[in-house]
Amino acid sequence: MKVDVLTLFPEMLHGVFHSSILGKAADKGIVSLNAINFRDYAGNKHNQVDDTPYGGGGGMVLKPDPIFRAVEDILEKDGISNNPHPAGEQIQGDSAEAAKVPRVILMCPQGQTFTQKKAEELSKEDHLIFICGHYEGYDERIREYLVTDELSIGDYVLTGGELPAMVVIDSVVRLLPGVLGNETSAVTDSFSTGLLEYPHYTRPAEFRGMGVPDILLSGHHARIDVWRREQALKRTWERRPELLKQLELTRKDQEFLNRLQNEAKSTQP
Amino acid sequence: MKVDVLTLFPEMLHGVFHSSILGKAADKGIVSLNAINFRDYAGNKHNQVDDTPYGGGGGMVLKPDPIFRAVEDILEKDGISNNPHPAGEQIQGDSAEAAKVPRVILMCPQGQTFTQKKAEELSKEDHLIFICGHYEGYDERIREYLVTDELSIGDYVLTGGELPAMVVIDSVVRLLPGVLGNETSAVTDSFSTGLLEYPHYTRPAEFRGMGVPDILLSGHHARIDVWRREQALKRTWERRPELLKQLELTRKDQEFLNRLQNEAKSTQP
Repeated sequence: MKVDVLTLFPEMLHGVFHSSILGKAADKGIVSLNAINFRDYAGNKHNQVDDTPYGGGGGMVLKPDPIFRAVEDILEKDGISNNPHPAGEQIQGDSAEAAKVPRVILMCPQGQTFTQKKAEELSKEDHLIFICGHYEGYDERIREYLVTDELSIGDYVLTGGELPAMVVIDSVVRLLPGVLGNETSAVTDSFSTGLLEYPHYTRPAEFRGMGVPDILLSGHHARIDVWRREQALKRTWERRPELLKQLELTRKDQEFLNRLQNEAKSTQP
Repeated sequence: MKVDVLTLFPEMLHGVFHSSILGKAADKGIVSLNAINFRDYAGNKHNQVDDTPYGGGGGMVLKPDPIFRAVEDILEKDGISNNPHPAGEQIQGDSAEAAKVPRVILMCPQGQTFTQKKAEELSKEDHLIFICGHYEGYDERIREYLVTDELSIGDYVLTGGELPAMVVIDSVVRLLPGVLGNETSAVTDSFSTGLLEYPHYTRPAEFRGMGVPDILLSGHHARIDVWRREQALKRTWERRPELLKQLELTRKDQEFLNRLQNEAKSTQP
């Protein structure tokens, strides 16, 4: 997979691109990660990439020209000589996929909320291009005529799109075959079951007077499996009950949850 | 504000801590940002910080000892000589706040979903300590007896807590007085109105045949304000209708939304 990130702060990405899983995936040749400063495409003598908004008001707005030209330069290197998203034709994620052109992803608070399902979808692509603004707004024509996907990682305000782009890239790259070894995949992947994780314990069995549940030291694996499933259900029910509605629960799961609900009722004043 | 991040990959944080808004806030002395490798607190000859889980299964689990000792070392530098969260006493965010001890924040998928409201709450603290795991699970005793807050930035799986911690830090630090200049605050802050942003446009007025809405070139500021409010309402209604329910809308807002709904109905086949 090839990943290009258009940004005014490429140095923000270097530490993350060269460390840990992303660094290893790049070393193995599974992914190529590039941070590109779109100021290089300003095309004016002051290298200006933003300007004041039409209609007045505060803030600055990223101009369309540098970003269109930066994306087109990347596409040209892919052998796509014309912008496959011509003016006047609005592109959706699905049609871009069908045409085998790279996804052009705008990180912005107005975007679709990023989820694990979207990470899985993006992990099937060959080439992702991310556009990161930085405090500025984007000229609407970038959104309408260049971008295939708008993504938001959550409902909070950040100073730029760089951290959100790194979050999306990390979650996508770790899904690529060969990136995670078996030893690292198990714990994190358990979130993908749709339940929050059960509690983990490791040595020492007693730490400053705090122990480990007896069941985990019992060696009785069938009972440990039941305990873990119940703990995962309990934690999800306590913290994120809405996640349970999206799951297919077994009869045993449902009986356990009913018991929890009854206990909660009986302890209410 | 003082921010300490416990991590096994401090180099992941350097680029972000030294760039853009966070770098400037640190240069101005508004925030002190430290990445601390908790492997330095391993306290065993192989510097081991994780171990296999009790009860079996894949993955590794972060041991309690190095993380307790790293947090206590930070607290000692604050003049808090004993762990204010003694074993056997479970700490909640509120009681930690009351006691003026630093918030100890665990980044994990099981945590409370991070929002702008939480960013505002954390921006009032003097000292934040973040604990970042990396593919491993956390020993449950860390969660129960050391941590005041568990946070998740969204429902997707990442390889570690470092990117989520940086996301939280970025959103909190930009709220500190003196960090954002007036010139940069306006555009991003508009998300805090509870509506998605209206479309922005800047020069050129015509770019490759793509124009700018006439209203924005009219110079009629009262009408521009109405257009922008309506566009923000329209975008929110189309993309994130659930956000509208949490807002106090004016009668004009409501009339505009009713009109949109009626138009949508009349164009359905």
